Amino acid sequence: MLKKLRSSEYPILDVFLARRSSRALSPEPLTNEELMALFEAARWAQSSYNNQPWRFIYSKNNSNTWKSFLDLLVDANKEWAKNAYALIIVASKNNFDYNNKPSRTHSFDTGAACQNMALEGAQRGIVVHGMEGFDYERARSLAHIPSDYTIEAMFAVGKLADLDELPESLRVREKPSDRKKLDEFVFENQFKN
Amino acid sequence: MLKKLRSSEYPILDVFLARRSSRALSPEPLTNEELMALFEAARWAQSSYNNQPWRFIYSKNNSNTWKSFLDLLVDANKEWAKNAYALIIVASKNNFDYNNKPSRTHSFDTGAACQNMALEGAQRGIVVHGMEGFDYERARSLAHIPSDYTIEAMFAVGKLADLDELPESLRVREKPSDRKKLDEFVFENQFKN
Repeated sequence: MLKKLRSSEYPILDVFLARRSSRALSPEPLTNEELMALFEAARWAQSSYNNQPWRFIYSKNNSNTWKSFLDLLVDANKEWAKNAYALIIVASKNNFDYNNKPSRTHSFDTGAACQNMALEGAQRGIVVHGMEGFDYERARSLAHIPSDYTIEAMFAVGKLADLDELPESLRVREKPSDRKKLDEFVFENQFKN
Repeated sequence: MLKKLRSSEYPILDVFLARRSSRALSPEPLTNEELMALFEAARWAQSSYNNQPWRFIYSKNNSNTWKSFLDLLVDANKEWAKNAYALIIVASKNNFDYNNKPSRTHSFDTGAACQNMALEGAQRGIVVHGMEGFDYERARSLAHIPSDYTIEAMFAVGKLADLDELPESLRVREKPSDRKKLDEFVFENQFKN
């Protein structure tokens, strides 16, 4: 049963309102199928020229690489992401496969893929929490990401925990965030500040 | 009834497999609720610091601005997008609201919002087709988009037409695109070329 955490002005798919970037990670492991389903969802995103610029490099908790992946994060993220089943570095290929020329949309397209990943997680009760708070250059060198790829974000993924299991400091942050009103970001004919 | 156009290796939400960038646009108008539901879906995407950098500027077919919006597109897009109910210019705010410093993820986050928009469309039988083939600088000046925003993409939206109504040149392009295999873009521990 999908729990809608927010309410919308216009009716939309439940999963959009069930998705949020929780910090409540359960120690219960994901199955391989659950982890792969997140990437499978990402796979079917839209991209310019169907270039699929997204790349995902993951480390599982307790693997040989885990500590060095976790150490990329700022302390405020480490505090909760240490309980993740896996950490994922997301990168994008700067150039098109078909002509090796720069793509304008490699970051935009990769954001689309990650939204699919987050929504599949929401549907399954899996936290898929994106982070900008990490060392981008150390992530590149640690994961051997070539210079013609852009480091976009990291994600922590894992089963959603009971809020009661969270320490107080994190529990108070579990309130779903709000959003701008539609007329603050949707304009007819021309931009308005 | 959602028509899944592709099959996946791992089970995922039907809507991911129903979404595609069709060129089959029906002259039937969208209702205001349908158009607004697309932006409502975008609204609930994830973004760094919940900054919601996405902005949408739309022109409806037959409005005063329609011809100039359509003229931004390359001919190959004009050919089918002329039948859209609306064209949308998508921009993103480069800096954070809270401290006016550059955000690394404004394009990535805006891609996430547009993926929500496309999925809500797929659920409703509405084409939400992203395009990179347009004049980015003319789009900025036409829609009065300030210099501290990035032009990301344009979208054509409208009801999905019967394929039988499409001219032959477009009908042959309506085959759903395929994707890379998972092991071409998902790597454990480190990137592989």
